[in-house]
Amino acid sequence: MATHHFTPTHYHRTIGEHAPVLHIADGDTVNTSTVDAHGLDASETQVTEGGNPMTGPFYVDGAEPGDALVVELEELTPNREYGWSRVTVAPNTLDPEYVARSPADQRDGMSRWQIDASAGTATMIEASGTSSTGLTLPLAPMVGCFGVAPGAGQAISTATAGAYGGNMDYRGFTAGVSAIFPVYVPGALFHIGDGHALQGDGEIVGSGVEISFDVRFRVRLKKGAAPRWPGGEDERYIFSVGNARPLDQALQHATTEMLRRLRVEYGFDETGAQILMGQAVRYEVANVFDPAYTVVCKMAKELVRR
Amino acid sequence: MATHHFTPTHYHRTIGEHAPVLHIADGDTVNTSTVDAHGLDASETQVTEGGNPMTGPFYVDGAEPGDALVVELEELTPNREYGWSRVTVAPNTLDPEYVARSPADQRDGMSRWQIDASAGTATMIEASGTSSTGLTLPLAPMVGCFGVAPGAGQAISTATAGAYGGNMDYRGFTAGVSAIFPVYVPGALFHIGDGHALQGDGEIVGSGVEISFDVRFRVRLKKGAAPRWPGGEDERYIFSVGNARPLDQALQHATTEMLRRLRVEYGFDETGAQILMGQAVRYEVANVFDPAYTVVCKMAKELVRR
Amino acid sequence: MATHHFTPTHYHRTIGEHAPVLHIADGDTVNTSTVDAHGLDASETQVTEGGNPMTGPFYVDGAEPGDALVVELEELTPNREYGWSRVTVAPNTLDPEYVARSPADQRDGMSRWQIDASAGTATMIEASGTSSTGLTLPLAPMVGCFGVAPGAGQAISTATAGAYGGNMDYRGFTAGVSAIFPVYVPGALFHIGDGHALQGDGEIVGSGVEISFDVRFRVRLKKGAAPRWPGGEDERYIFSVGNARPLDQALQHATTEMLRRLRVEYGFDETGAQILMGQAVRYEVANVFDPAYTVVCKMAKELVRR
Amino acid sequence: MATHHFTPTHYHRTIGEHAPVLHIADGDTVNTSTVDAHGLDASETQVTEGGNPMTGPFYVDGAEPGDALVVELEELTPNREYGWSRVTVAPNTLDPEYVARSPADQRDGMSRWQIDASAGTATMIEASGTSSTGLTLPLAPMVGCFGVAPGAGQAISTATAGAYGGNMDYRGFTAGVSAIFPVYVPGALFHIGDGHALQGDGEIVGSGVEISFDVRFRVRLKKGAAPRWPGGEDERYIFSVGNARPLDQALQHATTEMLRRLRVEYGFDETGAQILMGQAVRYEVANVFDPAYTVVCKMAKELVRR
Repeated sequence: MATHHFTPTHYHRTIGEHAPVLHIADGDTVNTSTVDAHGLDASETQVTEGGNPMTGPFYVDGAEPGDALVVELEELTPNREYGWSRVTVAPNTLDPEYVARSPADQRDGMSRWQIDASAGTATMIEASGTSSTGLTLPLAPMVGCFGVAPGAGQAISTATAGAYGGNMDYRGFTAGVSAIFPVYVPGALFHIGDGHALQGDGEIVGSGVEISFDVRFRVRLKKGAAPRWPGGEDERYIFSVGNARPLDQALQHATTEMLRRLRVEYGFDETGAQILMGQAVRYEVANVFDPAYTVVCKMAKELVRR
Repeated sequence: MATHHFTPTHYHRTIGEHAPVLHIADGDTVNTSTVDAHGLDASETQVTEGGNPMTGPFYVDGAEPGDALVVELEELTPNREYGWSRVTVAPNTLDPEYVARSPADQRDGMSRWQIDASAGTATMIEASGTSSTGLTLPLAPMVGCFGVAPGAGQAISTATAGAYGGNMDYRGFTAGVSAIFPVYVPGALFHIGDGHALQGDGEIVGSGVEISFDVRFRVRLKKGAAPRWPGGEDERYIFSVGNARPLDQALQHATTEMLRRLRVEYGFDETGAQILMGQAVRYEVANVFDPAYTVVCKMAKELVRR
Repeated sequence: MATHHFTPTHYHRTIGEHAPVLHIADGDTVNTSTVDAHGLDASETQVTEGGNPMTGPFYVDGAEPGDALVVELEELTPNREYGWSRVTVAPNTLDPEYVARSPADQRDGMSRWQIDASAGTATMIEASGTSSTGLTLPLAPMVGCFGVAPGAGQAISTATAGAYGGNMDYRGFTAGVSAIFPVYVPGALFHIGDGHALQGDGEIVGSGVEISFDVRFRVRLKKGAAPRWPGGEDERYIFSVGNARPLDQALQHATTEMLRRLRVEYGFDETGAQILMGQAVRYEVANVFDPAYTVVCKMAKELVRR
Repeated sequence: MATHHFTPTHYHRTIGEHAPVLHIADGDTVNTSTVDAHGLDASETQVTEGGNPMTGPFYVDGAEPGDALVVELEELTPNREYGWSRVTVAPNTLDPEYVARSPADQRDGMSRWQIDASAGTATMIEASGTSSTGLTLPLAPMVGCFGVAPGAGQAISTATAGAYGGNMDYRGFTAGVSAIFPVYVPGALFHIGDGHALQGDGEIVGSGVEISFDVRFRVRLKKGAAPRWPGGEDERYIFSVGNARPLDQALQHATTEMLRRLRVEYGFDETGAQILMGQAVRYEVANVFDPAYTVVCKMAKELVRR
């Protein structure tokens, strides 16, 4: 159970079967860093082309198709003082007739946010088109995009997401959470990047407060236990993640996967699982901006442990 | 500011311009009761045909088209010991291929729940197709269906919902919440019914734990302040409600309405409102079962008050 | 099999259980007229409030819930020289980002079209925001909105559609077509209006070339043969109509209903019907503008007759 | 303007930046063959893994990002006597409640079809679960999956489609049609495969009558004229293709692209183009089965040429 320190020298804008940057073992911990969605690093220097550049991939020794890869997010720390965000709500999340009657002038605007790690806040210090600077919100660092090679020779843009993970932009992927992914190729080939200092539900302006991160994560393998969709757990909930358009289909994937897990992992019979979910399920709209939307289906641990 | 006690003698399965059962004034309080979705009253006697029968409508003196009707939900108390629920997750919330490969045998099954008001719990004591009886969940009483006459001569089934309210099945409509509706016809003609002892997000089995209620609510008018969509507030949040299919459109309605309110009611400029929502908005999937789905868009009060 | 001549004196903007204007019998023919969507009659006089005003309802003696009402559209004749249309494509049919970056200035614009019945053409003679006047297209008169009372006390706006028919805006509802509707209430209560001189697929500008009509139709009853969704037949095809949002759901309704008909009316076994539809089905996007979208599922008569 | 004869020796199940199998020039013609969706060749021998294996890619000399690649489909000839098809309608195209109540037993069934090239027909000679063998339909050979490398290092499964083309499953891609694609990488890297002897709209059973093809196509380049989405023209229509889920979004892409083309290629002003499309547009539902659905937006050539 080694601890690795890895400094990236190049990044990928697809998740696929790229040459691994490091071999790690079940139980190992990795300390590394990620650049922001535009390819800016800890010094706000552009070190790679924008578009959610990924650190990695990491080859997990022993990982084989059909396994589950657990990624424990131990630390997600913004490693510079400034983040940025878009300033207009995405037109696909507003009534079309409202969009048609609104002026277009701020659509390319940006805002700049100052991170105060000791206070645990982000403050908007510049923005186009508003007098509302000074807005201060609590930091809630999260991973926007991570996952494993999707297999079958695919290399998928980090703009989107699927059963292999990807650009899920779920604000629940914070430090302290264990994420889980299905393994499709030997070594799993884990990629990570696109840190957000904070983000609202749905990522409706098309970004969180985008920033570079210092990251520490630990990997574990569950042999033969591949989920159908990504998921995870935090202190109170287990959750499953559906990535698709429209929201209805993302919700279908997440719901079906949770139902499967209640049967297979928690021993419910089919109807018992359905009754419990009916009265106790929780959903979150993770992102309603990316090419695949993300809906999260959650169940309280105290209700599923028997 | 009178207090009324009204005992219903008939019910409506549409929300429309029915003859009012009581005239009330701005500020008045009403104590009444509702039957459950199948038309069963406090004694589990079927007193009217099933299909979300409504108590009312109540004519609010002085209410005119363009006004806002505020309904403060003061008490929502299950008034009998037994509730019921469906037992299978609606096929529209599961992967179609999963549904196609699943047996159909429990689709008409029902479960029976015992309410323990002093303990604040509901316990499933009978259900078809499972050994999972004994499940106990906390009571969280909520109104499934309420709203005002939609105007233009329409009478809309209580199966569905729209800008006038209706069968929104949002578990956030609990005691302590102030709901708000646009007024379309003189007197507003407020209807209420379909109480749930508790319910999960999305109402994915097609029902909560359905029960009859004793209800106390208070009405207030805001002249000329009609919202475009229903909404409300609780201790921590203001919220707006979008009712439509698919989820994407319900979310568009709720988001657009919240944006409007931040400008009109809370004094934000357009871009300032969009930036704040981008990093701080919260969504809830209220129902993903009824003919119109319901998505709720929420903002923390501490962030919108300036 | 009488022939009736009915001159309307009032109109309805909901489809519901209104007082019948005429009693007719199975096999009878009705000659009547309809005003345009804005309530303008053959002399371009506004005789009723706009919003797809309906002529009727007609009470078909002997029609009972569970029956099918067949309406043979015999003549649909524009009865004045001028029609109108909107001039901008509805924003819900365009990419949201395109709409967000487009100017809003023509959104309320209108165009005026001259009807030349002898030439069989409509020519656009005035329009806001374009130099493209002079456009001439062939007449293809169709009924935008017709149907029967939906039952259960509902009165539904003529803006939308459902299993009872309504504002389907399908350019296939032309003279020579037999439409079919399920009967929900005694007498069926048939409504008709909203004539278009012509229309594109999808009604994407939110209107056809809107005009008043002289109409002749004949009704027939099929006892106990209620379809689940409206439909019809022309010379070459039988078709079923699904009304819902989004398009995916409208298509699901139309496809499921056609599958049912192939079994029940045409004697296919389930798999045989599915195989045939798989290789031979045709779809049309009737409207993608109204609150309920309309998709039509068609099968060639020569393939289903055995 | 050379004519090439190319015999494939390997195939790709992604569309991406694979090593080219042949260099060709603007104006050249290629004669080649494709295997069926399961990887079976002209002798019904499995020569490669199933999943829409592609012949190619072909490197078009001089093609650069921003160009348009025109592919004239000259001949599409089934090159064996037997095709196959699935036998059940995809559950995502049927009402969820209908699917939930239907038996699951034919879901993996297959049918076998005999091709009679001289008669121009396909006859179903074997199928699981039905007595309906003997069904004979006219041949209408079409390309299911073709397109160009999507760029940015992506390699996308031939199960799906996007702006680069892919698995569009549009029965309008027949011999005599000129297809057009945007070029993203030097040489365009054109892939082709997945021939269907015939197919219904929507490909609702998840396949056409799948067969191997002899193919002849000719390529042309239009410098700097990249469309935003694939398209094409036949004798009567120009058309644009949108690939996305749900149908609503696929239609948005196709409609927006047609509007752009009417302005840029045909000289309409914005409102003139919108008015014309409103009254004359045609849509086709190409596929409603694949991960990305496909909607085609068509305009008659006689209406757009001025």
